[in-house]
Amino acid sequence: MDLKNELAKRTALFNSYWGRFLPEGTPATLYDAARHLPFAGGKRVRPFLALTSCESISGDTKQALPFAAALELMHNFTLIHDDIMDRSVLRRNFPTVHVKFGEPAAILAGDLLFAKSFEAMLEASVDFQTYKKLEQGFIDCVVAICEGQQLDMEFERRNTVSEEEYIDMISKKTGALFRISAKGGGVIGGGTPQEIDALANYGMSLGLAFQIWDDYLDMSSDEQTLGKDIGNDIRNGKKTMIAVHSLSHASGKQKKILDDMFGNRNASDADVKKVFNCFRDLGSVEYAREQALHWDVHAKDALSALRDSEAKQLLKDLVDYSIHREK
Amino acid sequence: MDLKNELAKRTALFNSYWGRFLPEGTPATLYDAARHLPFAGGKRVRPFLALTSCESISGDTKQALPFAAALELMHNFTLIHDDIMDRSVLRRNFPTVHVKFGEPAAILAGDLLFAKSFEAMLEASVDFQTYKKLEQGFIDCVVAICEGQQLDMEFERRNTVSEEEYIDMISKKTGALFRISAKGGGVIGGGTPQEIDALANYGMSLGLAFQIWDDYLDMSSDEQTLGKDIGNDIRNGKKTMIAVHSLSHASGKQKKILDDMFGNRNASDADVKKVFNCFRDLGSVEYAREQALHWDVHAKDALSALRDSEAKQLLKDLVDYSIHREK
Repeated sequence: MDLKNELAKRTALFNSYWGRFLPEGTPATLYDAARHLPFAGGKRVRPFLALTSCESISGDTKQALPFAAALELMHNFTLIHDDIMDRSVLRRNFPTVHVKFGEPAAILAGDLLFAKSFEAMLEASVDFQTYKKLEQGFIDCVVAICEGQQLDMEFERRNTVSEEEYIDMISKKTGALFRISAKGGGVIGGGTPQEIDALANYGMSLGLAFQIWDDYLDMSSDEQTLGKDIGNDIRNGKKTMIAVHSLSHASGKQKKILDDMFGNRNASDADVKKVFNCFRDLGSVEYAREQALHWDVHAKDALSALRDSEAKQLLKDLVDYSIHREK
Repeated sequence: MDLKNELAKRTALFNSYWGRFLPEGTPATLYDAARHLPFAGGKRVRPFLALTSCESISGDTKQALPFAAALELMHNFTLIHDDIMDRSVLRRNFPTVHVKFGEPAAILAGDLLFAKSFEAMLEASVDFQTYKKLEQGFIDCVVAICEGQQLDMEFERRNTVSEEEYIDMISKKTGALFRISAKGGGVIGGGTPQEIDALANYGMSLGLAFQIWDDYLDMSSDEQTLGKDIGNDIRNGKKTMIAVHSLSHASGKQKKILDDMFGNRNASDADVKKVFNCFRDLGSVEYAREQALHWDVHAKDALSALRDSEAKQLLKDLVDYSIHREK
């Protein structure tokens, strides 16, 4: 089985299902704003995780569709609100919702998708006890994402952040949703406690690997192609895995460069390049790559508790994909 | 039984219960922002409605506490987000959440309370079928509130709004939550379809009366005490019941005053007074008072389907209270 084909197959299945929670409606601005990001594409990694995790237990992909829809609706809600907070102007190569529809409609569009995510969850074919467990896990995940986003914003304003704090932040902001996606699929499939734990651990490790690899990808371009995003992240003092590593390892001249120019909104392009060179010369870019690989190993290890299946192989392949993709 | 005493008793019972969904936490800014409005007071009218409606069916107040908590958490979430959109600076005599904690934390605080509202709902002691009905009603209500808020904002930018459109807007923005509060209490109490319908109709009518009475209260002060809120509403072109009535009945000189000065951000205090005089002279202030009373009659009529009880009497008394209160 080829991961890309299987991913595309499940994305098609998923897309044909979840549209029912994204109807057109009145007032049109609200519904258009709510439909903008969901229909702007996206790899549907979280639905894939839920569907394939369920399949790895029960053999049935479709059983997890409502929960997968809940996850993707909730994911899109958090992205819309995060983009407002982060003043982001582009997402998936389209204008962000608040840029296109204004901030008030974007806040409401996020709220609407959040409400709809629970409507999707109600379609899950599970007993009440299982439903309660599933919904509580989903709620805990939203709470974690809120905490993670708040921490991420606060970290930008701090001079230093420990690696432990950074991992805690991304485990909330990114890891929690990957975790509940895989775990929820296992719960719906009727997995044993051991299998469900394994999928939860797999999801969290995969999420951390994804996020750290994102940090790495953003900074792995060579000096000539230093993009706008890198400049913004450096000027905003964004505490990526790479920045966190550099800030705790720099001394002397390098420390002075970071102190003066990292998180300095007025840094010139030349300043940004100097900071980037510090990141590279201190081994921080390479360190982030290693850490992503480290979590990938964890993710694969977690899967050993599952019996072999094509679905399990796909979950493994997704781990490799997570560090070969280019955004 | 005295309504004020009974309201205070239920508020105390409610406040001692719902705090569990509003813990302190880390990051402190997020949790402090989420706790700010819930702990800034509030009459807890929606919890009172849910508790007393449940009591009118089953005789048991406490049964509806989790659902009442879900309602109040959700209500606070929508207020926090609305205040951001409306750029309001004060609520319950305290600075609004975005003024005190910044807009990003306020968006997240709202999201957190919304998530917690579903956590509260999960505590309801009902069977799965009832739970599904309750949660779907709750979700539909949030969707209606989002639609109502979007309409309210769009109406401000429009020249005219029909009375029918105005009633549709407030039935979503205010009525839907009153409706589900009373209806949900009836569902939890195990009411018959007729009783549940009666409570739903009661809640909607009461909500409309409350909102129109608010419009009336805002404008019923005499010329000498025209407050800041009136000036803002007139300068923003806020489509209250009163404005809607005046805009559709004015002609000649009065029409010109409204065309020129209503919704004009640069209107002077004298201009505001002229608009206010039009509202009064066209009978629009009095018309709004009559309409509030009209919906109050509807609310009381709906209750006739319920058997007599102390709880039913309290629900009736709440109708009278809705038009005697001063904000």
